[in-house]
Amino acid sequence: MTRREPINPTDDAARALVRDLLADVRFGALAVLHPETGAPYVARVGMIWDDTAALTLVSTLSTHTRALLVQPACAVLVGEVGDKGDPLTHPRLTLTAQAAQVDKQAHKDRWLAAVPKARLYYDFTDFLMFRLTPVGIDLNGGFGKAYRLTPDEL
Amino acid sequence: MTRREPINPTDDAARALVRDLLADVRFGALAVLHPETGAPYVARVGMIWDDTAALTLVSTLSTHTRALLVQPACAVLVGEVGDKGDPLTHPRLTLTAQAAQVDKQAHKDRWLAAVPKARLYYDFTDFLMFRLTPVGIDLNGGFGKAYRLTPDEL
Repeated sequence: MTRREPINPTDDAARALVRDLLADVRFGALAVLHPETGAPYVARVGMIWDDTAALTLVSTLSTHTRALLVQPACAVLVGEVGDKGDPLTHPRLTLTAQAAQVDKQAHKDRWLAAVPKARLYYDFTDFLMFRLTPVGIDLNGGFGKAYRLTPDEL
Repeated sequence: MTRREPINPTDDAARALVRDLLADVRFGALAVLHPETGAPYVARVGMIWDDTAALTLVSTLSTHTRALLVQPACAVLVGEVGDKGDPLTHPRLTLTAQAAQVDKQAHKDRWLAAVPKARLYYDFTDFLMFRLTPVGIDLNGGFGKAYRLTPDEL
């Protein structure tokens, strides 16, 4: 059996799928280097998309926030699994990124419009906001539908 | 306002929640070190729980599989987000783990019983199986419900 090349040429459909996945994002799986062991670590975080980068609101009480404060290289997995069929047929993307802390008050209106229940904790002093600037985007639209995009292709 | 300690003492309810999340798992977000850059990377993978460790079936065409072949330290995020409310209120856990390749034929019946549609690709030669032996388990049952378990507490 002949297998296809794993990465397809980027086309308009792939770019549109990436834009849709990012526009809809409300959470993701954030991968970081564990601040004590240096091993990979992953946690669910709240996340929205802000035109050219992701924003995440995270607590300093958590391992992943302490990780970002010492090592800004990270990655996030975005895209939900539907109720039916093999979970691997549902589109998702991996954003590799560099994190930088930003002033959360500058993004409060946008965040609360997307995640109204965050009003309960948004102003807690242990919550920080990071901007995750994309380094690369790996789109997986399902079996045989892998694409690799650069940030300027968004 | 007085904030609680971030990690609660492990109790029976926490252990039961961990067992339930692992028993139900069919996929997870696998965090690895990127094989070229060494930066964190994360991807969705198919996954089941096998009594004391997770099993994952992954393709050598993917970045995360090439990563596991050179660096066995990894982590997986398990636990789905429901339809309602803040995504961060839904229970999930992070398993930090060490990956080791195993013979996928030894686990075929169990895998296909859990993921019947995997019959379409299970025997493809580029698919390998890894056993992810837990190093630690961070349970997040929702705000203020963080626990840290050792593998022998399962």
